[in-house]
Amino acid sequence: MTTLRPIGQVVSGLVDLAAAPRQGDEGAPEAWVEVRADLAAAVATLPVGEDVLLLTWLDRADRDVLFVHPRSDPARPVESVFRTRSPDRPNPIGLHRVRVLEVDGCRVRVGDLEALDGTPVLDIKPVLGAIDDR
Amino acid sequence: MTTLRPIGQVVSGLVDLAAAPRQGDEGAPEAWVEVRADLAAAVATLPVGEDVLLLTWLDRADRDVLFVHPRSDPARPVESVFRTRSPDRPNPIGLHRVRVLEVDGCRVRVGDLEALDGTPVLDIKPVLGAIDDR
Repeated sequence: MTTLRPIGQVVSGLVDLAAAPRQGDEGAPEAWVEVRADLAAAVATLPVGEDVLLLTWLDRADRDVLFVHPRSDPARPVESVFRTRSPDRPNPIGLHRVRVLEVDGCRVRVGDLEALDGTPVLDIKPVLGAIDDR
Repeated sequence: MTTLRPIGQVVSGLVDLAAAPRQGDEGAPEAWVEVRADLAAAVATLPVGEDVLLLTWLDRADRDVLFVHPRSDPARPVESVFRTRSPDRPNPIGLHRVRVLEVDGCRVRVGDLEALDGTPVLDIKPVLGAIDDR
């Protein structure tokens, strides 16, 4: 199995795991995605004002967890991590739909990102209606 | 950077890269996702009849490609891979919205999956309205 090579990282005021919102639309702040210098041309054409899918590696997650209380609420019965968006899972890939606000060289400013400062970024994909919205 | 640990693999009649449809809704076949034996309990509650997001590792992709002709059509000008769903990209993570058709122990039957036979599976996530459909 191949090793991941991050394309960049999240630069955010969100540094505290306990304070992070569960989802990007629950009060997450703007953040910068800083990509590697060799990728500047590849992010130059990202669509400002539109949404994209950002894939991250949730490096502070516990990869041995298979069952969680949804939204960390102990009152709710445990569920398979595959039924939740818990960061704790065998391969903690974060999937975030974010608005592109600005592209400045190797830096991309995005809205409403719940990922913590320093989180590795793996990929950026367009939102496709047929895949994501049907 | 941590190495990926696949949770399983795709078992599909789709073995030929050239014959693979570009997206799952363009004529892709049913397929089985075979997960590791230790994950049987974690897939037992997957919602039959509903859609989930399947994340795969597109192991036949070229990770050094940054610009592609969209849909491999040479008549279309090249675009950044981050503007397309091309499998060729620095971290070739496939994102597939598929219907769960059946769960049988460690095997999950899904509809309309364009991933090739043997493709490693990384994760299964629920579709969340706020993230995927807004």
